[in-house]
Formats: sequence, structure tokens, C-alpha cells
Amino acid sequence: MNEVRIIPVQGIPEIKDDDNLAEITYDVIKQSEIGIEKNDIFVVTQKIVSKSEGMERDLSNFNFEELLQSESKKIIRKRGDLVIAKTNHGFICANAGIDKSNVRKNTALLLPKDPNKSADKFRKRFESLSNLPIAVIISDTFGRAWRKGQVNFAIGSSGINPFESYIGKLDSFDNELNATEIAVIDELASSAELVMKKTIDVPIAIIRGFVYENSNLNAKELIRDDNEDFFL
Amino acid sequence: MNEVRIIPVQGIPEIKDDDNLAEITYDVIKQSEIGIEKNDIFVVTQKIVSKSEGMERDLSNFNFEELLQSESKKIIRKRGDLVIAKTNHGFICANAGIDKSNVRKNTALLLPKDPNKSADKFRKRFESLSNLPIAVIISDTFGRAWRKGQVNFAIGSSGINPFESYIGKLDSFDNELNATEIAVIDELASSAELVMKKTIDVPIAIIRGFVYENSNLNAKELIRDDNEDFFL
Repeated sequence: MNEVRIIPVQGIPEIKDDDNLAEITYDVIKQSEIGIEKNDIFVVTQKIVSKSEGMERDLSNFNFEELLQSESKKIIRKRGDLVIAKTNHGFICANAGIDKSNVRKNTALLLPKDPNKSADKFRKRFESLSNLPIAVIISDTFGRAWRKGQVNFAIGSSGINPFESYIGKLDSFDNELNATEIAVIDELASSAELVMKKTIDVPIAIIRGFVYENSNLNAKELIRDDNEDFFL
Repeated sequence: MNEVRIIPVQGIPEIKDDDNLAEITYDVIKQSEIGIEKNDIFVVTQKIVSKSEGMERDLSNFNFEELLQSESKKIIRKRGDLVIAKTNHGFICANAGIDKSNVRKNTALLLPKDPNKSADKFRKRFESLSNLPIAVIISDTFGRAWRKGQVNFAIGSSGINPFESYIGKLDSFDNELNATEIAVIDELASSAELVMKKTIDVPIAIIRGFVYENSNLNAKELIRDDNEDFFL
């Protein structure tokens, strides 16, 4: 098995409403030494996706509390300033994913309305420019239950099976591996974070060399139904 | 910023009680083309650490239920066959981390007693052989609250700050990033999983090119205290 490479894409300009991310990324890469290879996986931070989709809100016009309500399906926990909400998409995270960093002052940034659709759109446009099949993951940084610190998660994806399943396969001792389904798109999102520094501008990483299964399934598959969840 | 490489270490033999993992790994790498570089991060799966520390239990001598009790500080949730327990170390995972795959039939494998100590031991021995500073992460695959699929987590570490903190730093718009602490060792563990296939033998990966802070802190830092946790 070969190594997997995580390659930062630098030089993406500040993104604004209606920018075409796939075209901008294609142009930046064309001018770099990175190149494009078949089955490259593009991990794109939610922030630039949201900006390109007009999800910035001016806090002089919008009350943060109202934004929080409109972005949430349900408030899960609340303690002081900290609100853990289930977003309309089904993600459980602080402030329903509304972000006040890396945006203009007095501005908040909402999550993309449909991150899987955003990933689809990026993939299709990029593939038509490059003539190579790729996969796309939209990522965001969330906290977790039980563990301190945040990690990157996949909130949208296109062109890659979100799971790598070992169900029914045999281990090296011929025992059946009966309960292992790896959420590979979350692991890929976490890997990408290693080259995406929050304070400098690396909003996109390419993961090269990871063999994945092509699929119509997307990041929605990772959201566990409320009635199957032990921790709500 | 440069790319990060995730390199599988192949050819590690089946590990048994009392094997010295650092020496075995050093020998395998010496015979490969991988080489060793300053600040390489070694991610080692719990499975071979546990085997080298004699944590295999013959299920004809031990009742699984008893093992589960002895490995758990607390049973968190129970539904049918599925038990989510808090281990004596403080990890929240299925079956208190006891594993029945990739071990001999009718055998169960417990987690290492002190994975941070295991990581220390590996690092120190490896550094004395290679004369280069490295970091070590012991990883295991756990499920998560709210999301389907499992990912790799850091259960022990040595020589690397478990967090990368952006607290107090400024973003590109001069806003203060006031709540971002990335659990980098979890992200590194997840990255390593991308080259560790469950059904073949890649129990170790090297992550090369990731710039980290040297530290005496370890993976214990990631465990949130019960009284700070919203989801117990």
C-alpha cells in the first residue's frame, strides 16, 4: 500500500457571494505545482462554501439569538453562553454552526443550506474543467461529546462512499469483523485539518493516494437518527 | 506550508507478549525505504501494544461479562448486546474497548493499562535507537455520539502537545479566535487510519511533515471531566 498525501492549496483569494469555488480552485491549482490527479479528494472548509453561497449575515440587521433559532432544529444543551444545537441538517454542534471568526467584524456566517449539494456542484464543475474524476468533502470543525478539543468533520460530500465497511470481512485470524464501519469522510476531513491553519489562508486541501469507493451516497449517511441515538 | 505524508509501515510481524515494539518497528523500517526523519509521528494501533503487554485473555478462563466489569469505571448505556462503558482510563466506547477481532479465536484483547506510558516507552526506546526526536500516538477505533461509523482516536501519546490552540490568536480579519483548540492527536490518529486497513497488516503509520509542539502533556488531557460533560 502506498502513502497518502495531504496537500495544502494556498493562494485561494478571499471568497465572496456568488464566486464559483470550483473555477477559482482550478485556476489556483493550474498556477501551482500541485497538479491534479485522478481520484484526488478535495476537502473544502465550510467557511468559503458559505461565503460563496451568500450565508454571511450582518449582525446589525440580525439578532444572534434569532439566527440561532432559525438555524436549529432543536436546542440540545444550554449552559451560560454555550448552546449546543442540532442544526436543520442534523449536525450537533455549538451555536448551530454559526461562526463569527474569519468573517468581517460584526458579521456571522451560517452553514451552507445543503452542504452535499455544495459538494456536488463543486465536483461536477471541477470534473468538467479537469476531465478527471474527483471527490469532494465539505468540512467544519466541531466539538465532541466526552473529549476536549475540536476536530474537523465532513458536513457534505460527493463522489465518495462515506463509509468503508468491514462488515462480513475476515480478519487475519479468520474471525468475522462484524461491527466495523469506518466513517472515512470524517477521517479525511480530520486529515485535511492538519494542513489548514486557522490563522492563515488554507481553506482547501487535496488528499492524494487514498483509494476510495465511488458512490452516490453522501455525508447525510453519517447522521444518526434521534431514535437510534443513546446520547440525546 | 508543505504537505503532510501518511506512510504505512508494512511487515510488522505478529506481536506477542513481551515483544519490544520500538525495536521491532525500528528493524522493519531499517529494512524498508521509508527511512526515519526528525519529528516523525508514529501512530501505533492499540492492538499490537496490548498484545506486547500481555493483555490477551483466553475466554475459556475468563467470562466476557467479568472482563467488561473489570475494565469499566462505569456502564454508560446498555441496549441488548451493546454496552457503552467508561473505561478505567476514562474513554467512552463500546465494550470498554475489549476487542475480539484480529486476535486468536476465543480470545479477547483488553486495552493497554496505561497507553500514555506505552507511548512513552516506545518513544524513548525508538529515540535511543534512531538518535532522532519523534512523537508517538497509540490509537484505537471508537464509535461516536450522534454520528454513524467509527473513527480512530488517540488513547495515548508521548512527545507531542495533544492540542493546537488558537485561543487569543487573531484570524485574517483581526477577530480574536476565542474558542478554538484543535485536538490534533485525534486528527493524527484519524489520518493514520487511512493507511491502516483492518483486514491486512498495517498496525503502524508514520506521519511526516506535520509541525507540532513538543510537550510533556499527553492524551489524558483530552478526557473531559464528568462534571464538565453535557452528554453523560
